[in-house]
Amino acid sequence: MSNSNTELGLATMYRVIKKSGAERVSDEAANELRKILEEISIRIAKQAVDLSNHAGRKTIKSDDIRLAAKNVLKHDQ
Amino acid sequence: MSNSNTELGLATMYRVIKKSGAERVSDEAANELRKILEEISIRIAKQAVDLSNHAGRKTIKSDDIRLAAKNVLKHDQ
Repeated sequence: MSNSNTELGLATMYRVIKKSGAERVSDEAANELRKILEEISIRIAKQAVDLSNHAGRKTIKSDDIRLAAKNVLKHDQ
Repeated sequence: MSNSNTELGLATMYRVIKKSGAERVSDEAANELRKILEEISIRIAKQAVDLSNHAGRKTIKSDDIRLAAKNVLKHDQ
């Protein structure tokens, strides 16, 4: 664990980008992907908490996450 | 490592949702968030690879990730 603000692993980011067809990946690119995914995860999670409160629940369910993600992301499927 | 398709940790997903104000988090919700983040990471990474190829580069840079994320996500900032 490098620092307390960092939940997602950098090695994972390299792997995902490599798997997607990259020959080489700069350190800054892996770090940028991590930063973006962390921001997105927090945005989705916060909206999921709002949605679950709105439904009178204290437990976050997968439906909350799904609806939150739909609101946060461009979905074309 | 639970299985080869899983790059992001489940414990991390619980932490992110808890940090966002959840009292309780169902296993399915944590799993759903992981699934969604993995899909997004792959979509961003693939588009970043395309963008870097388009620019005649073999190394993925942070600019590729940033532009790819802009295309994949709804950004209101």
